[in-house]
Parts: sequence; structure tokens; C-alpha cells
Amino acid sequence: MNPIRPTRILGLDPGLRRTGWGVVDCAGARLIHVAHGVIAPPQEIAFAERLLFLFEAVSAVIAEHAPDEAAVEETFVNNNASSTLKLGHARAASLIAPARAGLPVAEYAATVVKKAVVGTGGADKSQVGFMIARLLPAAGKTTADAADALAVAIAHAHARTARNFRGAA
Amino acid sequence: MNPIRPTRILGLDPGLRRTGWGVVDCAGARLIHVAHGVIAPPQEIAFAERLLFLFEAVSAVIAEHAPDEAAVEETFVNNNASSTLKLGHARAASLIAPARAGLPVAEYAATVVKKAVVGTGGADKSQVGFMIARLLPAAGKTTADAADALAVAIAHAHARTARNFRGAA
Repeated sequence: MNPIRPTRILGLDPGLRRTGWGVVDCAGARLIHVAHGVIAPPQEIAFAERLLFLFEAVSAVIAEHAPDEAAVEETFVNNNASSTLKLGHARAASLIAPARAGLPVAEYAATVVKKAVVGTGGADKSQVGFMIARLLPAAGKTTADAADALAVAIAHAHARTARNFRGAA
Repeated sequence: MNPIRPTRILGLDPGLRRTGWGVVDCAGARLIHVAHGVIAPPQEIAFAERLLFLFEAVSAVIAEHAPDEAAVEETFVNNNASSTLKLGHARAASLIAPARAGLPVAEYAATVVKKAVVGTGGADKSQVGFMIARLLPAAGKTTADAADALAVAIAHAHARTARNFRGAA
């Protein structure tokens, strides 16, 4: 395999109350933690303003860390139609911001993300957090939302490395 | 009542396949049609790109017509969770774009919009189209999506005039 310029991946775990984000450099099979965080819009502002807050905060993360690609978790679809609708709104902010910055945006189901990081699609949050600490020791302490976002970035790193191998075969 | 500088209102009827928009000037009880149209993103592009298309097209309408305020229909919540989630995404594009342009963004339930235009919350699409042709004769022929968007703008015009009357009392 040829040496590969590291690809910087932005992972996003979207939510209206909290959107987790994580940036990881991926050079072949090597993963390097860059940064992570959680975006929490003030809850007392109007709905459109909360979405704008998410959109602008994701755009600011992109401006600061200049990722090459983005990956967004396919959020759990709730039985409650009203909360599903809200989730869709929040997720759009995490999709439009990187698309607007010209990044390719991949989407991964939560089960695919868990499988990539823990080895099983049925893993719980504590297992994801444990594996993020092992795979990205430089990340230090992460909240569940940031750990999930880093896990999405790792799932994308794996998927694109697998594609590169297939492409080279 | 003092003479009022016309307020320009952008009405939006969001949808992933078609987002209707309509711009109306409102001076007291007088309504003047400015423009309307339908945004239909290409369906073969990636989901994030379709959302970006909606976002940028709504932003372009705002740049061209310079509305003072925006009003967005509260889209029907479907029983199908997956289409409800998609609807949420599309709606976010119609909320973030005007919020980003600094416009106040109001939201109105479909029943409130129909009641404002037709007089009953249970009106069907043809009744809305008929009343739009009566209230805004300059609009000419409108598709259902554009008529709905103009109806949202009218509903907002009525609501804000009612607020001004209350404010003046």
C-alpha cells in the first residue's frame, strides 16, 4: 500500500439538545485524535434560532479544524412522531453545514457505528466510551455525545479504508 | 391607526421534494403579491446535497426579495417515522436560511393557515388555491405548493396585524 496523506474526518452525532462532534485524522489504519466537543444550543431561544445555533456551531468546527470529509450518525427513529420530526430538524443542521463547506457527507446507522468501534451493533454507550478511550487515548475524558461522534468518525475511517483496499485490488 | 410601512413576508411550505415559497407585502389590511415559486432539488443527488440545495435556494429567494419576516408551515406529522424524519430535515432548511439572514421566523399549523385564508381549518388544497387567486389576483396561476406558501405568508400577515391592533389598544 502506498503511504496515504492523512484524511481528516469530522464525525457528528446530531441532536437538538446536544450535538456531539469529533475530529480524527486517519492515515491508512492509523487513527489520531484531533479534537472533540458538544454543541448545546440555549433552550430558551426560538426553534429556528436553535437550529441556526447548531448550523453555525458545526460550521465553526469545520472552519477551525478543516476536515476533508464528514460522517453523520443516522439517528434513532423514535415512535413519537413529534420528537422524530425535531430530530430530523437537528440532523439537517449537521448535514447542511458540511455540505455547504464542500465536504462529502457520509451517513452511518448507529448499529454500523457500534459494530465498527466495539465489534457488535448492540453495544451500549459505556462500551463505546471504553473503546474510544482505547482507540484514541489522546482524547482523554469524553462525554457520551462526543464519544459517539468520534465513533462515527472511526466508522467512516474504517469504511473508506476498506473502499481504498477494494479500489487497489 | 397610523399608516404602516409595508412589511414584506416570506411564506414557506417546506418539503424535501418540493418546497413552496411566496412573498407578500402587507400594509395594514392590504396584501400585495410580490413573487412565488417552488424549489425542487434534483432527486438523484445525495441527501445532504438535496438539503443544501433547499437551504441555498431559500437563501437566494431571501437575497432577491429581501423580506422583513418569514413564516413557515408546521408540516403534517406523518405516521411513518422515516418520512416524518425526512420532513424534519427539509423543514430545517426553511427555518435555518431565514434565521441566518436575521429574519424573525414564525411557525403556523396548517389548520391555522387554512383558517386564515379560507375561513375553516379543514379546507382542502383547491379551496386554498381559489382563495389565493381571490386575495392575490396578481399572483396568476399557482401550483399547490406555491399557493400554500402564499397562504402561510397571509396567515402571518393576519396574525401580525392582529398583534399590532392589540398593541395599539
